Amino acid sequence: MIDYTESSGDLVEITTKKGVYRGRLLPRHMLSRDDIIIVKLENGYNVGFSTEDIVSIKTIKKAEEVKSVKREIRRGKGPKITLFGTGGTIASYVDYRTGAVHPAISSEDFLFSVPELADIADIDAEMLFSVLSEDITPEHWKKMALEAGKALNSGSEGVVIAHGTDTMSYSASALSFALRNLNGPVVFVGSQRSSDRPSSDAVMNLLSAVRLATSDLGEVVIVMHASSSDDYCHVHRGTRARKMHTSRRDAFKSINSDPIGKVTPEGYELKNYRKKSEGDVEIFPEFEEKVALICAYPGLSAETLEHIISENRGIVIAGTGLGHIKSSMIPVIKEAVKDGKPVVMTSQCLYGTVNMNVYSTGRSLLAAGIIPGGDMLPETAYVKLSWALANIDLEEIGEFMRKNIAGEMEERRFL
Amino acid sequence: MIDYTESSGDLVEITTKKGVYRGRLLPRHMLSRDDIIIVKLENGYNVGFSTEDIVSIKTIKKAEEVKSVKREIRRGKGPKITLFGTGGTIASYVDYRTGAVHPAISSEDFLFSVPELADIADIDAEMLFSVLSEDITPEHWKKMALEAGKALNSGSEGVVIAHGTDTMSYSASALSFALRNLNGPVVFVGSQRSSDRPSSDAVMNLLSAVRLATSDLGEVVIVMHASSSDDYCHVHRGTRARKMHTSRRDAFKSINSDPIGKVTPEGYELKNYRKKSEGDVEIFPEFEEKVALICAYPGLSAETLEHIISENRGIVIAGTGLGHIKSSMIPVIKEAVKDGKPVVMTSQCLYGTVNMNVYSTGRSLLAAGIIPGGDMLPETAYVKLSWALANIDLEEIGEFMRKNIAGEMEERRFL
Repeated sequence: MIDYTESSGDLVEITTKKGVYRGRLLPRHMLSRDDIIIVKLENGYNVGFSTEDIVSIKTIKKAEEVKSVKREIRRGKGPKITLFGTGGTIASYVDYRTGAVHPAISSEDFLFSVPELADIADIDAEMLFSVLSEDITPEHWKKMALEAGKALNSGSEGVVIAHGTDTMSYSASALSFALRNLNGPVVFVGSQRSSDRPSSDAVMNLLSAVRLATSDLGEVVIVMHASSSDDYCHVHRGTRARKMHTSRRDAFKSINSDPIGKVTPEGYELKNYRKKSEGDVEIFPEFEEKVALICAYPGLSAETLEHIISENRGIVIAGTGLGHIKSSMIPVIKEAVKDGKPVVMTSQCLYGTVNMNVYSTGRSLLAAGIIPGGDMLPETAYVKLSWALANIDLEEIGEFMRKNIAGEMEERRFL
Repeated sequence: MIDYTESSGDLVEITTKKGVYRGRLLPRHMLSRDDIIIVKLENGYNVGFSTEDIVSIKTIKKAEEVKSVKREIRRGKGPKITLFGTGGTIASYVDYRTGAVHPAISSEDFLFSVPELADIADIDAEMLFSVLSEDITPEHWKKMALEAGKALNSGSEGVVIAHGTDTMSYSASALSFALRNLNGPVVFVGSQRSSDRPSSDAVMNLLSAVRLATSDLGEVVIVMHASSSDDYCHVHRGTRARKMHTSRRDAFKSINSDPIGKVTPEGYELKNYRKKSEGDVEIFPEFEEKVALICAYPGLSAETLEHIISENRGIVIAGTGLGHIKSSMIPVIKEAVKDGKPVVMTSQCLYGTVNMNVYSTGRSLLAAGIIPGGDMLPETAYVKLSWALANIDLEEIGEFMRKNIAGEMEERRFL
């Protein structure tokens, strides 16, 4: 095995039996194989070299700048921005033994891998937790809301939350309802390709998010690639964004609303947005965990629906079309409403608005006491109801769900 | 009250105190108000006149042609096409007292309202049932499969099924699996605006569907408006179509696949399609009703998932991202698989394919025995599993779900 003294980030020249390669040494993790070293070549590709094949390694340039960032967490110029890590691809690394992706461990990983952050802001990085986003629960929403609010109320001009993309729109919705009177931006950002892949969107997304966090925005938003190229990122309102592709870098779309802006690492352009408020952020971090999001489908049985209702304090239905479900479900829904369990209707079409006055089924559902969800996304309605059940009197929930709180619905669309 | 002898379809001139209007008398239904008559004006708008306001009604032209179609069901020239009604907007009418839409009653309503059908084909119309599509169940899929297969095996060159749009893609998927070796097209068609509304897409969709039913296509497809204008309709493969807007006329989109053609009342253009077979259609009309389609969401509890599993013979999960769900659900899923209940993973992103080898959660789910659903729509996977549980040996279901049967997945995408 070859002996080498180079460190991650160094620009090196590697000579193997097959040729000479030049690139930056990528960091090693506890799961990295000892006998493989990974280099990001100058063309952007990552290549693994077996140490057996390596004839020599020469350091071209030490990664001084990078390392100084690593050692000293709070530095950089410009406004103070708090960057929270939560796990997910944007903070993940590839286990080169298996090819699988794991969440990163420490907040320094961010500053280490994206030293350009220091050119935009004075970053205060903190790892809140490290879970893949499919494991984020309402408890994590609470933690994020509390910490984001605290940061904004103690001197940060903006907050960036690096989050796995799978459930990022649920979390962004959650903070949209939990944080009121925002005195700075709360910017969720993720990446669809981890930062050690050549096509990674992690760096551009993260830099764009931090740039936006220095703006006068007073909303919770999601910043992700706007297209497959690296032109710019879109700013999606947290309550309107949805992950609409499993793998594309431009997976996030604003549904039933336009993105509220564009952002690059260099600058941003916002329109139709709420400006940050004066005074402190008001924090309402509680969520009711016992809320179900269910899909209407042809074989759904009254028994299954009854069971789901019995285990929850509220239900959001992603109904068909304008907001329908089998008429045999109507008595079950009526019973739930009578028992003080709000039932909200949205549409699995995603685009468009429910309108429960057009067809007889819709009218019967309204008569049964269902709450029409307007043009809210099912996921957003689910988060909103979770918030409402923990913060609003039961008899006021119907009215609350019909009211636009954080850009999640167009009230005039309400039917 | 004014006395008049004109009939539906007649071109009339109505003189009121406010002016003179010319248009076609719209049909009356049992729920129509006696003192209102509805006229489709020449600009396309429907206007209701109170009989009190009418000074005189003059018939300009009798609706002879229309009425003769109404009296004689089977006529028209060209190939024999069977048109099944099932209910839904395309066969619905507005109750002018309440403004609500109700399903039409008889198959003649079709031929009466769209006499141009007779120019395309020799139509044999039959009302299979009349329910709004949110009430369609697997039992209705069976009925449609049996009747469509029977029609094709007894001389019809094509079948058109007029269906409510809410669950039309579920039904089209169902027939895609139930009908094999198709010797003619099975064309689902719906409308987003009922035919007595000025912006109705009913007539163009229906005529286009019947036109396509005369083609050499051997697949189950959906024909609906391709755009908001009346240019042409798209031909969507039944297993790939999804209603993606609550109200737009071009609500249906092919997901993870292009439409396989364009069609107008005058002609069609197909590409990458399966041609009709020789011999009889093979009909496998059975479906297992006890299959659940569930959504992964942050508050989902193991108890709720266990309950849903206990009440069903199989589960399709619309997971997050590349095919994930909270890792606390993995033991529950493992247990279900052990108990002989197949669990299939799809993505709530809709676009893209699941890939369960990228992240640790995906790999654990595979180890637990979950079946990855590739780039299948969650709804299509749900219908496919319902079919599989009624027709395939349990031990072969995993392999069957991974195999492309009716264009529902790209096998090479299978990961």
